[in-house]
Amino acid sequence: MEQIINKAYEYARQWLGNGKPAVFIPELTKEDPKKLGICITRCSGERYAVGDCTEKFTIQSIAKLLLLAVAVNDSGLDKVFSKVGMEQNGDTFNSVYRLELIDPRPSNPFNNGGAIAVSDCITGDTPEERAGKVYKLAAQCMGVDTVERSDAVFRCETETGYRNQALAGMMKYARVLEGSIEECLAVYYHACSIMADCRMLSYFGAVLANGGLLPGTEQRVLDEKMARIIRVLIACCGMYNRSGEFAVKVGVPAKSGSAGGIMATVHDWGGIGTFSPLLDDMGNSVCGFRALEYLSDKCSLSIY
Amino acid sequence: MEQIINKAYEYARQWLGNGKPAVFIPELTKEDPKKLGICITRCSGERYAVGDCTEKFTIQSIAKLLLLAVAVNDSGLDKVFSKVGMEQNGDTFNSVYRLELIDPRPSNPFNNGGAIAVSDCITGDTPEERAGKVYKLAAQCMGVDTVERSDAVFRCETETGYRNQALAGMMKYARVLEGSIEECLAVYYHACSIMADCRMLSYFGAVLANGGLLPGTEQRVLDEKMARIIRVLIACCGMYNRSGEFAVKVGVPAKSGSAGGIMATVHDWGGIGTFSPLLDDMGNSVCGFRALEYLSDKCSLSIY
Amino acid sequence: MEQIINKAYEYARQWLGNGKPAVFIPELTKEDPKKLGICITRCSGERYAVGDCTEKFTIQSIAKLLLLAVAVNDSGLDKVFSKVGMEQNGDTFNSVYRLELIDPRPSNPFNNGGAIAVSDCITGDTPEERAGKVYKLAAQCMGVDTVERSDAVFRCETETGYRNQALAGMMKYARVLEGSIEECLAVYYHACSIMADCRMLSYFGAVLANGGLLPGTEQRVLDEKMARIIRVLIACCGMYNRSGEFAVKVGVPAKSGSAGGIMATVHDWGGIGTFSPLLDDMGNSVCGFRALEYLSDKCSLSIY
Amino acid sequence: MEQIINKAYEYARQWLGNGKPAVFIPELTKEDPKKLGICITRCSGERYAVGDCTEKFTIQSIAKLLLLAVAVNDSGLDKVFSKVGMEQNGDTFNSVYRLELIDPRPSNPFNNGGAIAVSDCITGDTPEERAGKVYKLAAQCMGVDTVERSDAVFRCETETGYRNQALAGMMKYARVLEGSIEECLAVYYHACSIMADCRMLSYFGAVLANGGLLPGTEQRVLDEKMARIIRVLIACCGMYNRSGEFAVKVGVPAKSGSAGGIMATVHDWGGIGTFSPLLDDMGNSVCGFRALEYLSDKCSLSIY
Repeated sequence: MEQIINKAYEYARQWLGNGKPAVFIPELTKEDPKKLGICITRCSGERYAVGDCTEKFTIQSIAKLLLLAVAVNDSGLDKVFSKVGMEQNGDTFNSVYRLELIDPRPSNPFNNGGAIAVSDCITGDTPEERAGKVYKLAAQCMGVDTVERSDAVFRCETETGYRNQALAGMMKYARVLEGSIEECLAVYYHACSIMADCRMLSYFGAVLANGGLLPGTEQRVLDEKMARIIRVLIACCGMYNRSGEFAVKVGVPAKSGSAGGIMATVHDWGGIGTFSPLLDDMGNSVCGFRALEYLSDKCSLSIY
Repeated sequence: MEQIINKAYEYARQWLGNGKPAVFIPELTKEDPKKLGICITRCSGERYAVGDCTEKFTIQSIAKLLLLAVAVNDSGLDKVFSKVGMEQNGDTFNSVYRLELIDPRPSNPFNNGGAIAVSDCITGDTPEERAGKVYKLAAQCMGVDTVERSDAVFRCETETGYRNQALAGMMKYARVLEGSIEECLAVYYHACSIMADCRMLSYFGAVLANGGLLPGTEQRVLDEKMARIIRVLIACCGMYNRSGEFAVKVGVPAKSGSAGGIMATVHDWGGIGTFSPLLDDMGNSVCGFRALEYLSDKCSLSIY
Repeated sequence: MEQIINKAYEYARQWLGNGKPAVFIPELTKEDPKKLGICITRCSGERYAVGDCTEKFTIQSIAKLLLLAVAVNDSGLDKVFSKVGMEQNGDTFNSVYRLELIDPRPSNPFNNGGAIAVSDCITGDTPEERAGKVYKLAAQCMGVDTVERSDAVFRCETETGYRNQALAGMMKYARVLEGSIEECLAVYYHACSIMADCRMLSYFGAVLANGGLLPGTEQRVLDEKMARIIRVLIACCGMYNRSGEFAVKVGVPAKSGSAGGIMATVHDWGGIGTFSPLLDDMGNSVCGFRALEYLSDKCSLSIY
Repeated sequence: MEQIINKAYEYARQWLGNGKPAVFIPELTKEDPKKLGICITRCSGERYAVGDCTEKFTIQSIAKLLLLAVAVNDSGLDKVFSKVGMEQNGDTFNSVYRLELIDPRPSNPFNNGGAIAVSDCITGDTPEERAGKVYKLAAQCMGVDTVERSDAVFRCETETGYRNQALAGMMKYARVLEGSIEECLAVYYHACSIMADCRMLSYFGAVLANGGLLPGTEQRVLDEKMARIIRVLIACCGMYNRSGEFAVKVGVPAKSGSAGGIMATVHDWGGIGTFSPLLDDMGNSVCGFRALEYLSDKCSLSIY
């Protein structure tokens, strides 16, 4: 395994420098574009790491999985999925038009509109209290005591998240959102600005692969059904509008974040975390995609 | 003329009770649906009024004409029309999708997106200072010393204008808006919540009909070119997505507001103000439309 | 007048070479891009011509006015306007999406979808018989004994009118079209490929300006109401998605065709026909637009 | 297994009478809505059948898999996927707007637009010759000597496939289609009107499950890579705009057809064919969906 992960690193390195940083969050453009890390955590708990695996970055869209889990815990599956669908939609992650022309409900919990609607289903008196639940679950799922937030990214997204404001405005108008726009967005940005490294992402993937149990233990941190639903929905919608191509080329449920992280999960096998900041035109880490392609091929990980 | 306006009133009264109040601004649903007023101010200054002509209401979208005039004065015609187009678009007044899919610039200054973009071109240190220019021009154009604002409507729109937030978010994202979303919307809502009665609207129409001169005087309050541009653009886009049908049936440049007012202007003849709160499915006062239809027919006002 | 039209010609000539031919109809790209003709026919019948005024071209979209008049004659105003609306829509002339997402009825009779729906309301046993009515009216309105068709353009449009097939398919699916797609399109293309010169277009404009009477006579060829509706609707939608800007800059009801013709009509004054093949990005003749701008300014023709 | 399939039948029968026939193909509304058949073919070749398993129906959209395989064989993977994407799009199967507003290429080969574009990549001198290749592959993949066509359905779709004409028109306009619209649609309708029963569908599923080998043999009829791509893409896009929900509830790659068939495939396990004519609002057989839900649950078939 060690040999394979090292070769995956060499393979993926070839694409270093390809892609662009996430210009829609100015703070993210400050990351070093040459970073690359890959980490595997098997269901048994064994870990293999190569490259910049202790480099911290904000998890961004990967937080949408945690938001969903907390929201379902707080409000129930039926309520949450009365606000968002389960379908991939072929649009960019911040697309708005569909809420006006097709359906006022976001089509799935993993585009921006969907994650905002999901955030609305997390209960609590303040955005901080609500986000606190996400932080707690994040720490559990990532095998750490506590997770930190990037204040700079949080502020940046709060100030410049114009498309998210538009999405929230549309949903508030259509009464999909029940709470205040500001609080919803605050919960969402709190979650997006959680910091993690590749080790933590791979651990999270292993938890999902393990049906919600911590790797190498019988300790449950996620409901088994929720772990499965997350695996299914990220298989369908986890890589933005390249989810189908990723399924063909990699074939593993995975979720990417716009800071350059990807978390992949293979049922009963383990989790993979990758980090490299430059993104393809759909918002997925270029080198992370390549690393996963290599690993899937060599370890026969495709689920299809 | 007195006889004709009285008959127009009797004619339009037949439709009292038809239509719906503007549910998207909860405060507006409190108006008495049985009100009807019609007032004509000729270019000479003569005035004819019938019905509830001293009843005050918020001018809403009619303020978009004033916003445009102030914005052009502050920032110039070229800058303003680099932010909004001159074309009717066939969508509802608060439609968002076009900004994402077709053109990030609103297609004209008289839908909500366009008026918000226009508000961005009004200069000043605070929203109040910027709105103050609109208030001053409003008073001049409506023949009164000062205009008042409905605080209740202003607050209501500020709190519930979710679609306007979405429109502003889209435009801020696309850098069509340069200033802050909150301040832009504040300027816009300040203008929308100006209160007027039918006499004031008809006076405004007469000013436009007079090429910018106060009726019966040589006193200029609007640039002649601006008066003409407003007449042209409201002929094309003044009655929301019923502008074409209105042109066929009435044939007079006019602008409606969602509180139930309509301001019509006939070049070298005069202005007409109508008020009746219930709206058709496109957002135009049902009885006001009928009154104008009658007057246009009897006085041969159609410009086409 | 002679002096003014000559100056208009000199003015407009400055833009010769600007614009592009109508690439979506390959046959039209064969026209000489250097042609320019301007002709005025006053309501009294007097005629003034300059430049390439005997050059024949296909009238293309200008035929949509004739199709509407025949359809209303055959099927009645209510039926025709139950199939198409009266509103400008802000989209390109061959746009399809609105029929799926907004309204299965075309928004006005002067975009391609609308003209196809209107063609469906023209009765007759064969497309040729139905088109024959349009040809007959065309000859009457253009002051000639008979009009000819360009067989090459007719064939070209029939073979390459893919967007029109898409529009017709959408409307047939939604039961807006009652007859066969092929026959509808045949009627439409027969009309579009009618040939005229500037003199004929200006005569047509004078007929509309005259409320349906032939210039200088009392002979009626169009219903007065129909002449007025056409004047109104082309004022709103006659210059494709530049109708508003044209209204501001020229202010005269006019209809352009993609072969480079424009027909303008000024109530009680007369008609103007222009021809120059190169088109702006919205499909209007560049030099024709300029010529009309000059004439409107010098003769104070704006209706607003 | 026999017991499980019988129980699946009893379970699914509870929803008999729910749903609607495929009204957009009038011929399909003539099917008996009370039919229900389920058949399993294991990779080993063993077969289990219950209910109306010898009832023939047209395979409709299931043919899109065969079209893809033949097109890739004729024109290569790169060419075919330069014409269609690999992404689910959240729209109805016959949606057109995306081709105008988002991307002129259909987003995947399994919506109608995509299948028409794929048909264009099948070579041959006539539509019959091109469709012949599909028929031949269909027979091989379904374990029969030859497949038959429903002439009535073929004629009906040819005559009433207005939306498909619109889709083809859009793609021809955008040069995504290279051949003639009529021939492309003919190839497509020839494939859609292939008749099969549940046994044949389950056999097809087993071939895909077997990586392209006939069940219980080493005889290859499909390239292994092609079998895998089909399994992946139907997992993402096989159940129209309910593919995500189906993945959550059933978790098995499957493709439904609007005549009421569903073909499911489980790698290294086998194929399942179901038939019941009434469809849910997205176009999937109601009872077939339920039968698959039961079987997936009892046999732990979910791949996620």
